[in-house]
Amino acid sequence: MKPLEILVIGGVAAGASFAARARRLNEAAHITVIERGPDVSFANCGLPYHIGGEIPTRAALAVQNPQSLKALLNLDVRTGCEAILIDREAKRVLVRDLAGGNESWLGYDALMLAPGAAPLVPPMPGINDPRILTLRNLQDMDRIITAMARATRAVVVGAGFIGLEMAEQLCHKGLTVDLVELQPQVLPQLDAKMTRLLESELSAHGIAIHLDEQLTGFTASEHSVQANLASGTALNADFVIMSIGVRPETGLAREAGLTLGARGHIVVDAFMRTSDPAIYAAGDAVETTDRVLGGAIAVPLGGPANRQGRVAADHLLLGDKARPYPGSVGTAIVRAFDIAAGLTGWTEQRLAKAGIAYGTVTVNDNHHASYYPGAKPITLKICWEAESGRLLGAQATGGDGIDKRLDVLATAITAGMTIDDLCHLELAYAPPFGSAKDIVNLAGFAATNLRDGLVRRVDELPDDPTTQVVDVRGQALAAAHPVEGAVNIPLTTLRQNLNGLDRDRPVITLCTAGKMSYFAARVLSQNGFEVSSLSGGIKANLDPRVPTKV
Amino acid sequence: MKPLEILVIGGVAAGASFAARARRLNEAAHITVIERGPDVSFANCGLPYHIGGEIPTRAALAVQNPQSLKALLNLDVRTGCEAILIDREAKRVLVRDLAGGNESWLGYDALMLAPGAAPLVPPMPGINDPRILTLRNLQDMDRIITAMARATRAVVVGAGFIGLEMAEQLCHKGLTVDLVELQPQVLPQLDAKMTRLLESELSAHGIAIHLDEQLTGFTASEHSVQANLASGTALNADFVIMSIGVRPETGLAREAGLTLGARGHIVVDAFMRTSDPAIYAAGDAVETTDRVLGGAIAVPLGGPANRQGRVAADHLLLGDKARPYPGSVGTAIVRAFDIAAGLTGWTEQRLAKAGIAYGTVTVNDNHHASYYPGAKPITLKICWEAESGRLLGAQATGGDGIDKRLDVLATAITAGMTIDDLCHLELAYAPPFGSAKDIVNLAGFAATNLRDGLVRRVDELPDDPTTQVVDVRGQALAAAHPVEGAVNIPLTTLRQNLNGLDRDRPVITLCTAGKMSYFAARVLSQNGFEVSSLSGGIKANLDPRVPTKV
Repeated sequence: MKPLEILVIGGVAAGASFAARARRLNEAAHITVIERGPDVSFANCGLPYHIGGEIPTRAALAVQNPQSLKALLNLDVRTGCEAILIDREAKRVLVRDLAGGNESWLGYDALMLAPGAAPLVPPMPGINDPRILTLRNLQDMDRIITAMARATRAVVVGAGFIGLEMAEQLCHKGLTVDLVELQPQVLPQLDAKMTRLLESELSAHGIAIHLDEQLTGFTASEHSVQANLASGTALNADFVIMSIGVRPETGLAREAGLTLGARGHIVVDAFMRTSDPAIYAAGDAVETTDRVLGGAIAVPLGGPANRQGRVAADHLLLGDKARPYPGSVGTAIVRAFDIAAGLTGWTEQRLAKAGIAYGTVTVNDNHHASYYPGAKPITLKICWEAESGRLLGAQATGGDGIDKRLDVLATAITAGMTIDDLCHLELAYAPPFGSAKDIVNLAGFAATNLRDGLVRRVDELPDDPTTQVVDVRGQALAAAHPVEGAVNIPLTTLRQNLNGLDRDRPVITLCTAGKMSYFAARVLSQNGFEVSSLSGGIKANLDPRVPTKV
Repeated sequence: MKPLEILVIGGVAAGASFAARARRLNEAAHITVIERGPDVSFANCGLPYHIGGEIPTRAALAVQNPQSLKALLNLDVRTGCEAILIDREAKRVLVRDLAGGNESWLGYDALMLAPGAAPLVPPMPGINDPRILTLRNLQDMDRIITAMARATRAVVVGAGFIGLEMAEQLCHKGLTVDLVELQPQVLPQLDAKMTRLLESELSAHGIAIHLDEQLTGFTASEHSVQANLASGTALNADFVIMSIGVRPETGLAREAGLTLGARGHIVVDAFMRTSDPAIYAAGDAVETTDRVLGGAIAVPLGGPANRQGRVAADHLLLGDKARPYPGSVGTAIVRAFDIAAGLTGWTEQRLAKAGIAYGTVTVNDNHHASYYPGAKPITLKICWEAESGRLLGAQATGGDGIDKRLDVLATAITAGMTIDDLCHLELAYAPPFGSAKDIVNLAGFAATNLRDGLVRRVDELPDDPTTQVVDVRGQALAAAHPVEGAVNIPLTTLRQNLNGLDRDRPVITLCTAGKMSYFAARVLSQNGFEVSSLSGGIKANLDPRVPTKV
């Protein structure tokens, strides 16, 4: 029997995973991997950390090379080769050797497209200055390291995941960093209040943050490049990192007539097949299904890319045993200095925009037992479907244990769990690891209390003078860190001081974290008051660093 | 209307949670809490850590006291009071003031029994020596601290969760520690091989471990107490900690004629009601439902106790809005020095004993991206229902990220997820937090590979000389840390060396972690060999500390 000819375009995450799995399933196949760049299967998520010096050796990022892939997996890897045309009829791809310029046709029985996505670089004045850099591969990284060697000032444009990682790492290297973001918040993927701790952490490390700022172009001079913002601000730097997003590299797929989605991604079915059944696609260039609420979603991250490549190989070679790619919930995390923040599923802003009826609550607690040394605060926000209580999204921020809570909630969302289910998740508890009631349980408690009408929530303090704002923190703490317009009645004295409040006017209770204010709201509502609690407390709404003790 | 009389017996985890929730749901009720000891609502899980000095102040463990519970929750807390009789007919409890000896009846509309569990102290010669101690409350802790002050040697009997924590903490304090365990492994709650890393960590810190040893009694002398083991070993110590388990304190419930389970626990329904509808029970004294495979289960841990107390209060006061306690999956974790180990759901030994048809696999990986500094190895074992692939249990051990994987898998088990579902959990990934393919995904991959017949597993090397054992690690590593009886053919040269193996004899492939040996098994099986891979590799089966590099 003639061996199967498998051709893979793109040899990093999705392409490499596909090729490796294909080999494990079929020793006899000819598997050829075409990669435009000089490297395959490198650790692209690690690039910022080598720039900042946390990963000391460049070699640590080069996970595999053509020789090792030949030895381990008997793959025919051709770097420096670009696929320039797909002839679907004849099942062949025209490949150009970028060094020699030679072109040749490679035939295939099955083709995998894993071209990835390129950093967005929009046309604007001065954009072609060589000091304006992006970060996608090891060569980009090398260019940034070279630029950094004689630099003192950098501008990072875009405060998403890569932008934040780059700002942090450049700061580690002693550079003065300006961070520019079009939206009025850093990490626009999250709800605004959930990013304030991150913002405060970046500022505390000297990064100058420019929010709500449109970049209009660059002005070059001999010794610097100047980023011009619509507000009139001009930022001078030795180099600029553009990290405003990525666009899928789908020119080849488009020219081949494969079906593309609304935003230019390759459309695939649940087995990663394109509109041509002999052609698969996976990774940053494709759109898949939103596992939470359906619809198309593009998730340009390493995890999905690797798993999609594996699914495609299974479909090609395992037949009936192949299982579909179930889609993505959109889990992501970023660390900046001592703070992490991330999300899974949908945010409140996304739900509101889509007109979906949702509930939401924000809770605060420590990442492990408060009485055990080293406990660090976490803020956790969850969103659920109003009618069913099904969990739709979660966001978390804090100093430790953020990844754990996101992972638990990503699993819960994937499983279709409800806010009731969160109450009784039985998570690993010993004082160094968690709490008898983990913050995930607390989120379930708070959500079901809202659903059951035990408490009403607000997430801002009204300007309205008829509302009585009651700060139920202890006297000393409330005096040291007062909230404007609030009267302090500590929870411990509330029952004795009910007559100091006007039963005919609405009350909002508040405290540091939103727990004592809930307790107070229960006391007040059972005593005839119309009362709401500030959900998530001062910490989530007013000041993410508010002290919990005097 | 006459306010509801709510009486709570036991004021620590379940009792305190019940009382607090009851108050939030009903401001008017009279809520009385009877506690035999001098303290309520203390952090019992923190006791070992104050003994060892990690939690420096005793006050950190006293979370609440009668005064603070009065002020915060208007609870009538009576410490030093013991309930000695329940008169169910008249709905009243006879309470004795332990200081004065006065007895009085307290009436109730609803009664909560939260008496907890006491450390097991079996009758044996010399057991009443005052230097033989247990750890349940702050007074026990104080006694241990006093004993420690003039001690240099301690014996800890029982290597379960508390025993391991105590051994670690006593070691921190500079004591010479002997740890005695009846079973042939530490942490008998886990499968034996999953405890070897923990055992090696304890030994590395100088703890002398005596496994498979039956304690027969004690011999007292003026300056020491001697623990006598059935093997003839005698261990001298200044004091002994007995930590061989707990028994539910259900004397009161038994005398009141409430239904008890096979092992003496109070039987409750899904709303924590005992056989008397006016009496609830929660915490270490009750048995609830095993969420994984049904049947009765007693889980004497703080998390379930707190949540059970809350469910009971909801049932009493929320009516239709109350949701049942869904039972327990049995999640637990322990840390000893730099190693953690834990489980959720069922172990292989339990499944085998119960005659349930299961699959199992063990995988190894780092807790975050290997190329990012500080990556620590994890070993993860999962078990699933053979027919359906439904996840039934997970165990993990390693230096970091153990709690996270257990929590994800506890959530997955609770949701009824299968091994296919694990493949596509989308967990938070950035190099400091995880891997593009997390070890949880890898466990799913390995399990489905087994299920789909892509590989066969063994978990020990046969004595049988007809089997060819092939070590596929690199030459230098295999030479530096050889496996007896194995021939070294590095994976990278395997395809060229097939003729060096006998096609008529079975092959077992092995490597450090079980991944390369799987790759090798795929090569060999497609070349006509009958081959199995050592599941979990050398690390999981032969040596948990085997180096991964020369």
